[in-house]
Parts: sequence; structure tokens; C-alpha cells
Amino acid sequence: MDRSWIRLEDTAEAISAMRIRGAARIGRSASEALAEYASSWEGEDPKELVSDLRRAGRRLHSTRPTAVSLRNAILLTLAGIDGCDSVDAIKEMVVKGSNGFLTSAEEAVGRIALLAKARIPFGSVVITHCNSNAALTAIEAAFTDGRVKGAICTESRPWRQGHVTSRRLAAGGIPTTMVVDSAIGLAVRMADVAVVGADTVTSDGTLYNKIGTSLLALAAKDAGVPFIVCAETFKFSNMADVTVEERSPSEVADPLRPEDLPGVRLYNPVFDYTDRSLIDCIVTEKGVISPDMAPSIIKDMFGDLSDEELNWL
Amino acid sequence: MDRSWIRLEDTAEAISAMRIRGAARIGRSASEALAEYASSWEGEDPKELVSDLRRAGRRLHSTRPTAVSLRNAILLTLAGIDGCDSVDAIKEMVVKGSNGFLTSAEEAVGRIALLAKARIPFGSVVITHCNSNAALTAIEAAFTDGRVKGAICTESRPWRQGHVTSRRLAAGGIPTTMVVDSAIGLAVRMADVAVVGADTVTSDGTLYNKIGTSLLALAAKDAGVPFIVCAETFKFSNMADVTVEERSPSEVADPLRPEDLPGVRLYNPVFDYTDRSLIDCIVTEKGVISPDMAPSIIKDMFGDLSDEELNWL
Amino acid sequence: MDRSWIRLEDTAEAISAMRIRGAARIGRSASEALAEYASSWEGEDPKELVSDLRRAGRRLHSTRPTAVSLRNAILLTLAGIDGCDSVDAIKEMVVKGSNGFLTSAEEAVGRIALLAKARIPFGSVVITHCNSNAALTAIEAAFTDGRVKGAICTESRPWRQGHVTSRRLAAGGIPTTMVVDSAIGLAVRMADVAVVGADTVTSDGTLYNKIGTSLLALAAKDAGVPFIVCAETFKFSNMADVTVEERSPSEVADPLRPEDLPGVRLYNPVFDYTDRSLIDCIVTEKGVISPDMAPSIIKDMFGDLSDEELNWL
Amino acid sequence: MDRSWIRLEDTAEAISAMRIRGAARIGRSASEALAEYASSWEGEDPKELVSDLRRAGRRLHSTRPTAVSLRNAILLTLAGIDGCDSVDAIKEMVVKGSNGFLTSAEEAVGRIALLAKARIPFGSVVITHCNSNAALTAIEAAFTDGRVKGAICTESRPWRQGHVTSRRLAAGGIPTTMVVDSAIGLAVRMADVAVVGADTVTSDGTLYNKIGTSLLALAAKDAGVPFIVCAETFKFSNMADVTVEERSPSEVADPLRPEDLPGVRLYNPVFDYTDRSLIDCIVTEKGVISPDMAPSIIKDMFGDLSDEELNWL
Amino acid sequence: MDRSWIRLEDTAEAISAMRIRGAARIGRSASEALAEYASSWEGEDPKELVSDLRRAGRRLHSTRPTAVSLRNAILLTLAGIDGCDSVDAIKEMVVKGSNGFLTSAEEAVGRIALLAKARIPFGSVVITHCNSNAALTAIEAAFTDGRVKGAICTESRPWRQGHVTSRRLAAGGIPTTMVVDSAIGLAVRMADVAVVGADTVTSDGTLYNKIGTSLLALAAKDAGVPFIVCAETFKFSNMADVTVEERSPSEVADPLRPEDLPGVRLYNPVFDYTDRSLIDCIVTEKGVISPDMAPSIIKDMFGDLSDEELNWL
Amino acid sequence: MDRSWIRLEDTAEAISAMRIRGAARIGRSASEALAEYASSWEGEDPKELVSDLRRAGRRLHSTRPTAVSLRNAILLTLAGIDGCDSVDAIKEMVVKGSNGFLTSAEEAVGRIALLAKARIPFGSVVITHCNSNAALTAIEAAFTDGRVKGAICTESRPWRQGHVTSRRLAAGGIPTTMVVDSAIGLAVRMADVAVVGADTVTSDGTLYNKIGTSLLALAAKDAGVPFIVCAETFKFSNMADVTVEERSPSEVADPLRPEDLPGVRLYNPVFDYTDRSLIDCIVTEKGVISPDMAPSIIKDMFGDLSDEELNWL
Repeated sequence: MDRSWIRLEDTAEAISAMRIRGAARIGRSASEALAEYASSWEGEDPKELVSDLRRAGRRLHSTRPTAVSLRNAILLTLAGIDGCDSVDAIKEMVVKGSNGFLTSAEEAVGRIALLAKARIPFGSVVITHCNSNAALTAIEAAFTDGRVKGAICTESRPWRQGHVTSRRLAAGGIPTTMVVDSAIGLAVRMADVAVVGADTVTSDGTLYNKIGTSLLALAAKDAGVPFIVCAETFKFSNMADVTVEERSPSEVADPLRPEDLPGVRLYNPVFDYTDRSLIDCIVTEKGVISPDMAPSIIKDMFGDLSDEELNWL
Repeated sequence: MDRSWIRLEDTAEAISAMRIRGAARIGRSASEALAEYASSWEGEDPKELVSDLRRAGRRLHSTRPTAVSLRNAILLTLAGIDGCDSVDAIKEMVVKGSNGFLTSAEEAVGRIALLAKARIPFGSVVITHCNSNAALTAIEAAFTDGRVKGAICTESRPWRQGHVTSRRLAAGGIPTTMVVDSAIGLAVRMADVAVVGADTVTSDGTLYNKIGTSLLALAAKDAGVPFIVCAETFKFSNMADVTVEERSPSEVADPLRPEDLPGVRLYNPVFDYTDRSLIDCIVTEKGVISPDMAPSIIKDMFGDLSDEELNWL
Repeated sequence: MDRSWIRLEDTAEAISAMRIRGAARIGRSASEALAEYASSWEGEDPKELVSDLRRAGRRLHSTRPTAVSLRNAILLTLAGIDGCDSVDAIKEMVVKGSNGFLTSAEEAVGRIALLAKARIPFGSVVITHCNSNAALTAIEAAFTDGRVKGAICTESRPWRQGHVTSRRLAAGGIPTTMVVDSAIGLAVRMADVAVVGADTVTSDGTLYNKIGTSLLALAAKDAGVPFIVCAETFKFSNMADVTVEERSPSEVADPLRPEDLPGVRLYNPVFDYTDRSLIDCIVTEKGVISPDMAPSIIKDMFGDLSDEELNWL
Repeated sequence: MDRSWIRLEDTAEAISAMRIRGAARIGRSASEALAEYASSWEGEDPKELVSDLRRAGRRLHSTRPTAVSLRNAILLTLAGIDGCDSVDAIKEMVVKGSNGFLTSAEEAVGRIALLAKARIPFGSVVITHCNSNAALTAIEAAFTDGRVKGAICTESRPWRQGHVTSRRLAAGGIPTTMVVDSAIGLAVRMADVAVVGADTVTSDGTLYNKIGTSLLALAAKDAGVPFIVCAETFKFSNMADVTVEERSPSEVADPLRPEDLPGVRLYNPVFDYTDRSLIDCIVTEKGVISPDMAPSIIKDMFGDLSDEELNWL
Repeated sequence: MDRSWIRLEDTAEAISAMRIRGAARIGRSASEALAEYASSWEGEDPKELVSDLRRAGRRLHSTRPTAVSLRNAILLTLAGIDGCDSVDAIKEMVVKGSNGFLTSAEEAVGRIALLAKARIPFGSVVITHCNSNAALTAIEAAFTDGRVKGAICTESRPWRQGHVTSRRLAAGGIPTTMVVDSAIGLAVRMADVAVVGADTVTSDGTLYNKIGTSLLALAAKDAGVPFIVCAETFKFSNMADVTVEERSPSEVADPLRPEDLPGVRLYNPVFDYTDRSLIDCIVTEKGVISPDMAPSIIKDMFGDLSDEELNWL
Repeated sequence: MDRSWIRLEDTAEAISAMRIRGAARIGRSASEALAEYASSWEGEDPKELVSDLRRAGRRLHSTRPTAVSLRNAILLTLAGIDGCDSVDAIKEMVVKGSNGFLTSAEEAVGRIALLAKARIPFGSVVITHCNSNAALTAIEAAFTDGRVKGAICTESRPWRQGHVTSRRLAAGGIPTTMVVDSAIGLAVRMADVAVVGADTVTSDGTLYNKIGTSLLALAAKDAGVPFIVCAETFKFSNMADVTVEERSPSEVADPLRPEDLPGVRLYNPVFDYTDRSLIDCIVTEKGVISPDMAPSIIKDMFGDLSDEELNWL
């Protein structure tokens, strides 16, 4: 096995073992790995390189096959290589593709924060769920503007990302309250606006995000509280369905011993889905939209890619 | 301090220290304590006895001043003592009142289970929240009939009553699944009916129950799943408002050390409230009703009690 | 078998064979049969008479065990016989009970029409479903007042009661349009008010009525059209559940031959249920109520009947 | 009248007399007829050919003036002929246009089935209405995957297309149940997902489809059952309004004699309309979208056609 | 015409000419006038007195025939006179009836304020519409408790009662904002709770109140803001329908000259109606209820009055 | 200060002082002023001209900084000037841009009326709010077609634009009724369709329009009445937020003297916002769309403008 593949394999394993985590970080790592792999590839046959890159893409994709941002990063980084007629042109294309992806992913969060904060009225209490960098950056930007006077975050069982979220918000000087997940119904009535991130947005505008997001959306609608989603465009999926990842029961029952719940099945889904009718708007780096406009975002993202280039993974 | 008061004080302290817990058990203990206190009271002045009984009632009430079942138990046990003209008549009245309360509370759960199971279609998956004896008895009765083929329960943070609930259901042979509270939105779509208990039902039909109940109700409505409440009539409150108990932050952050969440406030409410429009029916031992009928239940419960007898606590 | 039983048996068989049909007619026939049976009973032991009357009631009830009006008619006709201490007193009680039931059932339709017509604005187009005497009498009364300018009725498959309904309305001079059942969504937008009858109203305010009623209620809510139910009080049920009668597939596939739909199951339920949130009001002979008030109607209907007297059937 | 026109006239008459029926078949026939007419046209003046083709298009359109698929087929087949400067170029353009339309229409159903089946959870009972080839192909594909375990279809009065639908589904091995249309409310609660076809989708996302579709959509929303529409892109209309076809009363009252319903008007609309808020998604061959995205589909379909080319019919 | 009638006529004319206005004041004046008329009646025939009192009641009722509080005041004041067998007994009965009505009406507002304030969370901004004494007393009581920190009231065109309301609230020290009626949608989002009075509550729980109330209720529901109605029990109507009073166009167009709006019709209804589904609770002096419980309030109010005694007006 | 600037300044002041009013008129005036300014500009440096035009644009924009149509007019008129390399080319570009804007704005209203009238069923009563030329033109066109049989308009406090609206409609022969704003809830039930204009439509499909519009939308949804918005595409905003203009309290309290409402704050917002879920469709000159499609309209309007060209104002 050649050296460049070994490095790619390292990245794949880091993603697989959750050392590299989070939709955005996974996508960036994969894109960089592909660019590096292409650059250090040694050979002369353009067709061979295309074939090797596809293999590399498939290897990376296999680490988290349901992660839309990973899939999109690979597709966008390798877009256009079929049309190149030399090894150098392909390498250049991949590096350019990777740089484009990395740059736009980097800029997206700042741009989203800029647009999202304008939707938060001055003096608001904001409620959020789990730990989304885009959502938290928006809340922090709004706090700097004087728009946010307090934040509520959920514990986010089973991983308790609410601990990370609450520490970050409190460290930034925002008066922060944490509640257990089941208190969402009561807590949302103390808030003026809800802001969350996204794992995936499908072409019909459905939001897939951390388990519990749909409850916050339902409770927000019931309480007349706007529900805002912050989502980089690479979170949008052109696939017809989404597989909800299910994780180990040990995350739920921990730290109890298995014999403590004899005969009880533990079901531990990672995401739930939120209907577009519950979403006030999705803030992307390309603008503020209704979730119904998702196909337009997808079309923009993939531009003129052929069906072949969109469906090889 | 006389001996009979000492025993009453024991009960008060047990309630206060949560050694006696649960709406039904608290009510029963208080009723028994009052009957015992009356029986062993030694004196000759009926007015003095009435006055002492009121004092005893107030003492018991002070242990959990927001617990409606406690309040109702005291009011019902001491009902009618004003009209008595002898010490013996008062004692008899209190013992009779206590026996009436204890008997009807005892029979209520069985009667509710009988009525509630008729609302569960054959072959249903039932979802429940927290740990309600009335709700679980109804689910078990329905399982015996072949109406229930599986149960889902929530973890019910922060106390994790879901562990008790899932053990009881699984021990009864019901295939049982437990999920974290934030999975309610997904889990309710795998269920055919939701059945919960009640802490309090107010006169306008609002349900106060374990934090998270309102989320299950919202998600059930959204998923087209009937939402059934099992509530003994002594859970119904004739007071205009309800104070939601807030408990120690240590229940939420435990087992973390306080320094782990610097500057983060932990808000730990015990109950939330569910609007009557989300409730399909309330099953009481007196029949199956719409929550709007609560005043009628309250009127029946208190019968001809005068304003004085209803408002001295 | 004695002569009086034979006449009772005739009525039972007529109900069973559907020669006597319709909630109101069934109830009246059963009540009359019981009064006649009591009157012609020959014997001297009051206990025996009570026992024989209960047996007669059970026989009548067995003919349509899911028909609430039949059950209520029997319970009300035989109410109070336990308290009588002579054969003559029992006979008198039953005849009085029967007369009371018959009179109030008779007067109910007129009283309902009087109250219901007041809810129909002048110049309305009314839409109805199936063939309810109470609803049609109300529509006719409103037409006489100038409140109704036209009526729409549904075909009401599979029995096509819409043919009977449309003929009756048109014969009364009301401009009448008939549509197929699937046109309810479009037709309700041409109407100003919807008026239907009831088979059963349960204690939580759910309406059980001819299959399709719930679609009219949903479409009416969506179109902002009030949905009014006309129901005599003896349609209200004090039982926890309702069994929906399922009838022969031949009613659906007729006049096709069975071999025409190989392998296809035909499901032919008679009733569906309509949630109380879709009902603007129920007009009974005792007044116009929200469906939530059903327990109050039931309580009034059965007065001081003991549990024993309510649950022997 | 020349020979090529005669053949076109044959097609027109076949459509008019309903020998050629169904949105897709009508569109294909018209497109083929235009291509054949163009190919066999004998003359030398390009302007005359354009004029004759427009005349031919108008003749075909006149046969079912409210059928959107017919209109779209004609517009797309004749698109671009204005820009051609020779008879041969026009003929080539029309044949190419026709082939493009026929191919994409042919492929659309398979592509829709592929996308739609991914929206049907494993082990689902599917409910459908009337007889849509796209919807049934999707259900069959989902059945092959093990996603569908049973199907419910409606009788679909007045033409009873449910008989055709149930026979097709049952013949394919799917356990199939048929109900009368008025049982939709009850039947949808036994289903996990609803799948229907489309007659027309307007630019604001309203669905026009077989009478009764809106009732299924309302009942599905009420029961928390997803409502999926399968629609080829040529079903989308760029016109501001839609005329709902009304057909003969004899279809409703048949086989009764007219004198049986004296004075009763029979109203027999073919379609009803379903608001976009009741539609979970529309599956087209171009992807899964929210109905709100209809203008984007229309824009893609008509590409760069000028206003003139879009509005001459 | 005798002297006692003349004084009664004075009251009638004062009501008719709007010198006596407001549901509560009208009711009280009529009740007093009847008591005074009875007391000063001179004659010996009890039947004649009953007949004269009925005539007096009809005269008073004719002044505002659609005013429910007037009707109820008359019915309650004259209740029971049929059963009296002497002139003195009748006189005593009427005076007692009048005193009862006056006392309970007087005490009702204070009792309602006590109950209603408990429903207003501490630190609330309250929004109200028009000028209801019961609602304003409740707001003031809540302000005294520290529950209210600000109030919003509407202008309430065409009579601008908002000017009276805002002056009263501001004079009481409550920070008060007034908006035009069309700003209700925006203003309700700045409020935490809405509190209004009632003109009439019908037996199915519909609220009739000052034109615009239904808009506040709709907007409150949309914004998740509780909507509370303060209504003395004598506002509840046992009649099947309500006639909405229409007043002079000059109130709308004033101070314009008629020629300024040539051909324009001015429609000036006094009340609109609010569906019970939009009302969180009705606070009466008898307790806090869901609007669905209206028949129970009506039954309590009229106690054992016969049909005759309820329907002679 | 040169002469051409002086004329531009005249326009700016006229807009500022409200002598030029209304979204469309403001936009047209600004566009004309810029074209005239460019044409009469004397100089030789293209960069200087670009700089002066931007300055002119900023000056005009400063007059009503929250007016979206003004902003769009300036952006569209000056689009493309960066790419020009001569003074003449710039002048030509601006004149062309201005002509394009003026022509499309002019034609838009007629085109909207044509499309919108097709959505109004024959024999409709139309309700409108405030005074929108696009909406009124549509209503008049529909009246000419026989689609409209009557109109209802609101008074539209505080400026009473309803007087202008009702005079225009009545003058056109349409039977017109005017109601106070608070009567919207009652009036919408007398209407078949609601048609309003737009001040601004944001990228997520929210409508900003005259205060009270959201109440009409809520009431229309509740009554099952379609709610149609007429909006030229230049009303669509690509900005993330909208500032709601607040105007002088004197408009509300006039003609009262300030001392009449001591201590009362008068809040006088000009617009409110209506959620896209309440809007049936937006009719633009480009077609009938769901509000969710707003980003597509914005993209079409601004075509290939760079970020720089879109964000310099």
C-alpha cells in the first residue's frame, strides 16, 4: 500500500473512531484528505487517478455512510475530474475543489451568524438544543449586538452536550440556564426565540437534527416562539431518504449495570426529524430561506454536476 | 405535647422528608393520621376538638403546601365536623370521613384501570412517561386483555423514574422499551396510544404532571396518537392557581461537581402543564370525561361543603 | 313459554332482523315491549317479576348489543323496580318508566329542531350526511323560517341513504343537491353550515355516527363551516367504549360478483368517530351544549340510578 | 383535407371520446400525433408549417381544454419551431421535441417509484385513492423491497376505479383491502402512509386530483400519516387557474331512473383541490420537493421558452 | 297609570335612552325597579300582582331585548312568584330575589378579580380590549400583587372606550400603552396574557363581546398568549341564539359628512363572537372554568326554575 | 452644488416629506431621478461618475431607509455600472436600467390583476385592507369579469385609507361596505376571498404590510377564506431583517389634546408581519407563487449582480 493511501486511511479511521466528529469537521477532513491524496499520487494514467480518487472517496464515505456533510464534501471535492484529460489537470481540479469547499465551509458560519442575528429581537432570551457551532456563533454575535440578554440550553441526553454548550455560552458572558430535556415545554415559554443547528436538511425541507429538536420545534410553535435553523449549505441532501443512526444502549443506561433493567430494550436514536411547517426559517450562508427552498440550495451547491457525478457514491 | 399529636407529627415529618411520597400515598397517610388523632383525642369540648383538628390539618398541609391530593385528603376527612354538637359525633365524623377517603382512593385505581383499558385498541403499543401507578395499572390490565403488545417508557430525568417503570412493566411480561426523554417525538410515532397519570387537574381542565408530560401530549397530537390521562378524583383542585415546585439543581448536575459548570444556572422544575386541548380524555373512577368537566368532578367530590369548610386551609 | 313473553320475543326478532331500525325506533319498541310484558305478567312474587323483567331486558338487548339507544331505553324503562315491594308497584313503575321514555323521545325531535334552527343563519345552504330524522327536522324547520335556501346531501354509500334524504328534502320544497361521498370536501365549501344526527355520544364527547361523518367534520372545520350535531339525550352513552359494527362485504361489492375482486378484502364499518374538537355544538332536547358536557347529560338522564341499576345489562 | 391531418384528427377524436384516457396517455398520444403530422407534412414554406402545427396543436387541445398534461405535451413538442428557418429544421425540431417528451414521460414513472419508495418505512400499510399509475408503481416497488405489508384503496365513486386498483394490487401479491370512500377517516388510521397521484399541480403548489383526494389529505394530517404525491413534471401547470371538470349526473344516479329522485340536482365534479399545507412532499422524476417549489419545476420544464411560445394555446 | 308604574317606566326609559348602560348596571337597575314596583303595588289579588309583575318585566326587557344580563336579572328577580299564595308572600319573594341578585352581582366582580389575578404570572404585561369593569378590576388587583408590570389597551373604535380604559389604568399607576385596534396582532406579542370581559356567554361556550374580541383571541392563540375571560354568571345565556346588535353608521363615519362616502355602505356591528377553542378559561365568581362548562353555570344560576318561569319573557 | 444634483435633491426632499408616497411611486421617482442625474452629469472620469451615482443613490435611500422598493429601485437602476469603461457607457447603462425598472413596474400591476382575478371565484365578495393599487386593480378587473359581486374594506386607522379605498371601489360601481378595523373577524365571514397588497416580502416569505394585515390573514384562515397577496417583484427584499417604521402618537390620539390621556403611551407602528403559513399565494407579475418561493423571485430580480453591487447601500 502506497504512502499517500496510508495517510488517507488515517483520516478514515479517525472519522470512524469518532476522533474527528461534527458534521463540518468531518467534511473538511475528508476534503483535505482527498486533496492531499491527489497531490501525492504518483502515476501517469488520468483514468487510473480518477478511479483511485473514487476509491478513496468511497473509503472515506464508508466511515459514516449516513453523514450527509461527508458525502457532499467528497462529491464537491471530486466534482469535474471526469472532464479532465491529464493527471495534472485532475490534481489541479481536486485541489481547487477542496480549497473551494474548505473556504466556503469556513466562511459559512460567520455569514450565517451575521444573517441569523438580524432575526433575533433586541433583549431576547434564546433557547437552543445540543451543541451547534453555527447556532452558538449566531447567539454570540447577537449577544454582542445587545440582542440577546440570556440563553437557555438543554442537557441533551444521553451525551449531555448541554454541558459543553452552557460552559461556552456562560464563558462568553451570556447569562445561561440549563434544563433537563423534558423541561423544554416549560423553558420555551421563557424564551423569545429558538435557534438550533442542523445535521441534514432534505430536499423537501425536513430537518434532521439531534434527538429532541422536533420537541423544541413543536413546543416553540405552541408557544408562539420563532424557530430558526442555522445550516451551512453542505448540510443539504439530494438523497430521497435519510437513515437515522442508532447508537449503543450503553449510552442510555450508563452508568448502570445491564442486570439492573432485566428484559428492558433500550432504544437510542441519534436524530429526529422536524417538519418544515414548524420551521420559521433556515439561515444559510447564501441567505435566509423557507425550508421549502431546499431544492434550490441543492441545485446551487451542485451546479452543473451530471447525474453520474452526483450518484457514484 | 400530648401523645396523639406526637404520632401526627411523625406522619408530618415523614411526608416532609419524602419518606412518604406520591400523591396518593401522601393523601392516605394524612387522612389516617387525622382519624387516629381524632380517635385518641382526650377532652370534652367539641369546639376545642374542632380547633385542634384544624390545627392538625394545617400542620400536615404545611409539609407539602402545593400538593393538591394532600389538601383534598385533609378537607374531605374533616368535612362536616362543624355541624357536630358532641365530641363523640366529631370523632365518628372524622373516622367516617377518613374511611370514606381511604376506601374510595383504594378502589379508584382498579376502577380507572377497568375504564381506561377499554380505550386501548387491541394490539396497541402504549407509551407512558414517569411512573404513575394508575397509568401502569391500566396498561397492565390492558395487557392481560391482549390489548397491549408492547410498551415504551421514558427515562424521566432527572430522577429516572423510567427505570422503576420499565422494570415493573418488563417484570409483568410486557415487551418494554426505554428511551431518553428527548426521543419522545420519535417514540410516540411507534406507539398507538399514550397513557399518563396526573399530579393535579385544575378546574379549567389543565393537567399538571411530571415535567415532560406536555411534550408527550404535543407530540402525540402531532402524530395522531390519543393521549389519555388516568386521574383519581382527589387529584382535582378547586384552587385558582397551581404553584410548580422547583427542586435542587444538584438533581440535574449530579454527579458533576459544581465547579464544572461555572456561571451556569440550573433550573429544575418538577411539573409542567398540559393544555386541555391536547388531552383526549381523563379517566377517573367516576367515569371517562373531557378535561373540561373538571368542575363537575370537583363539585361531586366536595358535595355540599360550605365555602368555610373548603377554604380554611 | 307464556303469551306475554311471546309478544316480547316478536319485538326482539323484529329488531334483530332489522325490520325495526333506527336508533329512536329501536328504543321505543323495546320500551313498549317491556311495559306490555310487565302489564300482562301473571304471578305474585315481586322478586320473580323483577327477575323476569331483567331477563326480558337482556333478551331485547341481545338483538343489537352495541346499540346505545336500545340499552338506554331498557335501563330507563326498568329503573326503580328494585325499590318496589309489590307486583302492582313494579308494574306501575315500568309503565310509568316506559311512558316517560316514549314521551320524552317523542318530544325531543321537535324541541331539538326548535333549538337547532336558531343556529342556522338566514339564507344558509345546509349540508347533511346520511339520513337523520332529528337533523332533517331541524333543516325543515329552518327552511320554514327562511333560514335555509338550499341543501346538499351526500349519497351515503354503501346503502345510499342519501336517496331517501334528498327525496324528503326536495319533497319539502327545499332546493336539494346530492353529491357522491368523496365530494364532501368540495361541497362543504358551498355550504354555510353542516347539520348531522348522532348514533352515539360518549361521555368524553366523541360522536359516533354514520361512516363519513368524521370527514364532513374535518372538511367543515377546514372550510370554516360550523358543524352542528342533533342528538336526543338517549343517544348518550355511559359506557367506556363503543364497538363499531362491521357489516357484510356484499353491501360494498354489490352488485358485482365475488370473483370480480379476487383476493381483495372488503372492509365495511358502519360508523366512524368524530373528535369533540370538530363539533361546534350538540343540540339536545335539554339545550345546546359543547360535546364536553356529555357526562352532565348522562347524569341528568339516569338521575339517581344506583350503580346496580346502571350496570346489570 | 390531407391525409396527415386525417390521422391527427383520429387521435383528437379518440381523446375526445375518452378512448384515450389518463393524463399521461393523453399527453403522449398528442405528442406522437404532432410528430407524425409534422413528418408527413408536404410543403415548402416554413411559416406555413409553423402555422399548420399551431392549428394542429389547437385542435388536439380543444378535445380536453382543461387537461394540463395535454397542454404541456403540445407546448413542449412544438417548442422552438419559431426559431427554425427551414421546413426540415422544423420537422427535426418537432420530432426531437416529441421524442424528448415521450422518453422523459416514460422514464418518469420508474424514477418516481425509485424516489417515492424510499419515503415508505419498512412494514407499512399504504393507503391510496382512485387509480394512479405513478402511485401504484411506487407502492409495488416498495412492496418488492419489503417496505409495504398491505394496501388500502378506496372504491372511488362514481366510476369505482378502486376496483381496477384493488385488482392490480392484489394481483401483485399485496394484501389489499377496499373501503367505500366515506370510510377514509377510519381507514387512514390503519395506514402508515398515504400515496396518491396528481392530475395537476399549480404554481402555488395546490394539488388537483380525483374528487376525494382532499379528504384523504385532511384525514391523513389529522391522523399523523404522511401524505405523498407522485407527479410527473408534465403535470405541473403554469396557468393562474384550473377549471374543475363537471361530468354527467347519470354517473352518480346510475343505475336509477331519473324519476326516482324528483327535483334533486346531482352535482358531479371530477376533481377537488388539496392545499399545499396538507402535502408532505411531491415526488417528481426530478426529485422530492415541497409543493411550494412548483414554480421551479415549471421553469425547468419550459426552460427558455418565450412568453409567446408559452401562451399561444 | 299608577305611581309605581311611573317609576318603573322611568327606569325603562333610562335604559332605552342609554342613560343607564353596561350589562351589569342595566341588570341591577331593572332588578331594583321590579322590587320597588312590587313593594308599592296596591291590590289584593295575588294573581293580579303576578300578572302585573310579568308585564313590568316585559316592559323593562323591551328596552334592550338582546341584552342577556337584563333578561337574567328580570327572570331571577321574579323567580318563584308563581308558587306564592298571597300578595305579601309575592312581595317578599320579589324583594328577596332582587336583593339576592344585587348582592351576588356586587360581590361577583371582587371574587372574579381574586380568582383571575392568580392566573396572571408575576411580571406580566397584560393586554385588554374595550372597557370591562371585571377585567380591569382583575388587572388592578394583579398589579397590586406585583403580577402586572404594564398594560396594553386598544382604542376600541368606533366609541374609543380605550380612552376610558387607558385613563383608568394609568391613573392607577400601571404603565399603560394604547394602540389602534389593527395593531392587536403586533401588540399581543408584547404581552404575556390577555384579559377581557364578556357581554354574553352562550350555553355552548361561545363568547359574545365587543367587536374585535375575536381578533384578540385569534392573535393570542397564534402568539401563545393565554386568553382569559372575566364574566359574572349573570352574563351566561340559556337561549339558543344571540342577536348581534347593529348600530348607526354615523358612529363609524363621524365626524365625516355623509356625502364624503357616496354609495358606500357602513356596517357597524357591536359584538363579535369568539369560539370556545380560543378561550383558556372563563373566570366567574363561582370559579374558574372551561367555556364548555357554561350549561353547568346556567343550571346553577336558575336552580329549580320551571320551564315556564324560564321562558315567559 | 451643480444643477443636476439640485434636481435629485428635490426628489429626495419630496420623498422625505411624504409628498411622494407609496412603495411603487417612491421607487419610480428615485429611478427617474438617477437616470436624469446620470444624463446631465458633466465630467470625463468614469470612476468619478460611478462614485457620484453611488452618492446620489445613498442620498435617495436616506429619505426612507426602511423602504424596500426604494432600495431595490436604486440597486436595479445602477446595476452594472462597475463594468463600464466609459462615461457614455455608464450613462447608457443607467438610462437603460431606469427604463427597464420603470417599464416593468408599470406593466406589473396590469399583469398581476390578470393573474389575480383568475383566483377569484365568480360571484365573490372580496375583502381588502388599507389601500393597495395592485389589490384594487385586481378586484376591479375581477368585477369587470363578473367575478366580484361586492367588496368590503376596512377603515384602516389611524389614517383611514379605507375612505380612499371605499370611494374608489364604489365609484367603479362595486357595491362596497366599510367596517371599522375591529370588525375584520365578523366581516371576513361575509367574504369569499381576501386580497391585499404588500409593502415588503422577505426572503423567507414573510409579508410586511399595513398594520392589521396579519389580523385579516388570521381571521381568513380561521374562516376558510383564501388570502391572496398582490406584490410586484420589486417589493421582495434580499435583506435578513425588516425594521418596522413607528410613526407619531399624534396620528392615533388626534384630534384629542395630549392632556386628555395623562400618562398613557401611544404606540403607532405602521406595519405588521404575516406568516407565510397564512398566505394562500402571492401574485407577482412573474406568476402566482407560494410565499416560500421568495428567494427565487429575488434571484430573478437581481440576476447576476455581484455581492458588491447588491450590498453597497
